[in-house]
Amino acid sequence: VTGHLTIALDAMGGDNAPQSVLNGANLARKRFPHVRFLLFGDESRLAPMLDRLPRLKKITTIRHTDQVVTDDAKPSVALRSGRGSSMRLSIDAVQEGAAAGIVSAGNTGALMAMSKFVLKTLGGIDRPAMASFFPTLRGESVMLDLGANIECTADNLVQFAVLGEVFARTVLGLVRPTVGLLNVGSEELKGNEAVRTAAARLKEMNLPIDFHGFIEGNDIAAGTVDVIVADGFTGNIALKTAEGTARLYSEFLRQAFRSSTVSALGYLLARPALRKLRRRVDPRRYNGAVFLGLNGIVVKSHGGSDSLSFATAIGVAVDMAVNGFLDTIRGELERLQSAGSMDQPAAAVKA
Amino acid sequence: VTGHLTIALDAMGGDNAPQSVLNGANLARKRFPHVRFLLFGDESRLAPMLDRLPRLKKITTIRHTDQVVTDDAKPSVALRSGRGSSMRLSIDAVQEGAAAGIVSAGNTGALMAMSKFVLKTLGGIDRPAMASFFPTLRGESVMLDLGANIECTADNLVQFAVLGEVFARTVLGLVRPTVGLLNVGSEELKGNEAVRTAAARLKEMNLPIDFHGFIEGNDIAAGTVDVIVADGFTGNIALKTAEGTARLYSEFLRQAFRSSTVSALGYLLARPALRKLRRRVDPRRYNGAVFLGLNGIVVKSHGGSDSLSFATAIGVAVDMAVNGFLDTIRGELERLQSAGSMDQPAAAVKA
Repeated sequence: VTGHLTIALDAMGGDNAPQSVLNGANLARKRFPHVRFLLFGDESRLAPMLDRLPRLKKITTIRHTDQVVTDDAKPSVALRSGRGSSMRLSIDAVQEGAAAGIVSAGNTGALMAMSKFVLKTLGGIDRPAMASFFPTLRGESVMLDLGANIECTADNLVQFAVLGEVFARTVLGLVRPTVGLLNVGSEELKGNEAVRTAAARLKEMNLPIDFHGFIEGNDIAAGTVDVIVADGFTGNIALKTAEGTARLYSEFLRQAFRSSTVSALGYLLARPALRKLRRRVDPRRYNGAVFLGLNGIVVKSHGGSDSLSFATAIGVAVDMAVNGFLDTIRGELERLQSAGSMDQPAAAVKA
Repeated sequence: VTGHLTIALDAMGGDNAPQSVLNGANLARKRFPHVRFLLFGDESRLAPMLDRLPRLKKITTIRHTDQVVTDDAKPSVALRSGRGSSMRLSIDAVQEGAAAGIVSAGNTGALMAMSKFVLKTLGGIDRPAMASFFPTLRGESVMLDLGANIECTADNLVQFAVLGEVFARTVLGLVRPTVGLLNVGSEELKGNEAVRTAAARLKEMNLPIDFHGFIEGNDIAAGTVDVIVADGFTGNIALKTAEGTARLYSEFLRQAFRSSTVSALGYLLARPALRKLRRRVDPRRYNGAVFLGLNGIVVKSHGGSDSLSFATAIGVAVDMAVNGFLDTIRGELERLQSAGSMDQPAAAVKA
């Protein structure tokens, strides 16, 4: 079976699982004919569903478990007592080399804790970060961290910059992605200690990174840079603020079209174009938060994922595997460490 | 001249000053016939402009100065050497009781530093915060801090909650505004030390505040609460991320309408309704960042203010004065301190 790529799926994670996971895999199958699936979950539920998707069934192996990590489980508890869960077993599959990556729509904190425990962080990286795509005026950007690390040191931010840059290069296919640090102003003296120190290091270090400097909140959607680096507190709030604003705007638009018969007619005429607009900002097309910095490919699909969202998340895992994200980032980190341009992990760790 | 209210205007601050300041005052005059203006700036430029606005001229007094705080001046330098500037003299007018409030579109950092130095903070408040309105699905909300305080203690956040609540009550006219703390999740254990401690205090303190608990980024535009409390770093980034996202959406909308002749026709039909939409999200209608926590009313208009923006900012200052914001907040803070439910400033200060 040379040329095949296996992705492990946590079939039981997410509000609409397992149906959305199976339907998502069935959609992804059409886009990626070389992909095979390892499906972790309750066989008595999965097998009959798979029987109704014969093409997916052909390329899928079910690995039975009836243990599930619930959405409200604490990460520490999930880690201790979830060793037989569908989430844990699918991560184990990556660690054992049975799968090239894993996708789960389950409990984010548990997925991060288990992934760190099982896969370990890459040498030179203290903490993994969550990254995701954003639509911008110029195309797409990557932002990290989106909430895995609430408090970050300057070292963490520098490491996120390296991770994000390699991700943009391998997955977005950019030759020389630009990187910006999210701040409250573009002047050197602005912001907190961590962003100021990180900016100084990214400038003085001999990194092969096109570091743009500080950017502000409005630069995210403007597409000023390809990679936006932030601590997890700020990044998470920026992500959700953008989502909320897009929802507000689209609701106001809906109300505007409904406000008179003539504007409703205008809506009918413009509908195909407006559908395209909706598609451009559809959060399901930007689904798939990637855990970067681990010895393995882990993609978190949104908890409320439908099949299209889940297929997008699978696509991200496949793109990372096919484009050799892990080899590239390992090479980059080794090169940086041997050049002495990044601090050793021990010195950079902060409890 | 009983019943008149005087507002001091820094005529020389902002990209389009002094013309936008004068035109803005002329617009505000129509909405607030009882308002009088004290105009600080270069008389040789202001007098001829005012001659062309005879109705405004009747209610305006020019106070000449040729010193101006530039946009790139450091706050500390402006404070030391800007004692004769239009910005400083207009703040002095508030301190001396010659004006009920001051509006400037000039250098934000300098305006904050001078306002703090001249007007001092209210008893019980360690640091003033910047607040502004946001359009939401439910109407309007107030968010603070928007960038005056990059790092905040739990005490700062609790004080911002009190300031924002009184502002929403007096200016938005809400009887019992709800208050939320911006965080990365709604569970008690989420977030950094400062927000967790602040939330615990807002719950246990016997404050007359309807504290909702934590909110997330998407709750801002959803209008989940009336007052959103955040540190200045997070608040600034959320504000600008929302602005950038609205711009992205409106650009995508423009492109959608232009994508075909039929959708362009649809646009023509829906235009009046879409104009209303644009008006609903027009940032000029939400202009005017208020400095809360000072012994005086200080409103910062956007640096790029046009006359409509500047008129909106004047309107905020007038609303605060007319609705007795300062008396209400002073009463509230006294009551809280005598009840012992707020820490004394000395204990709360952190360098």
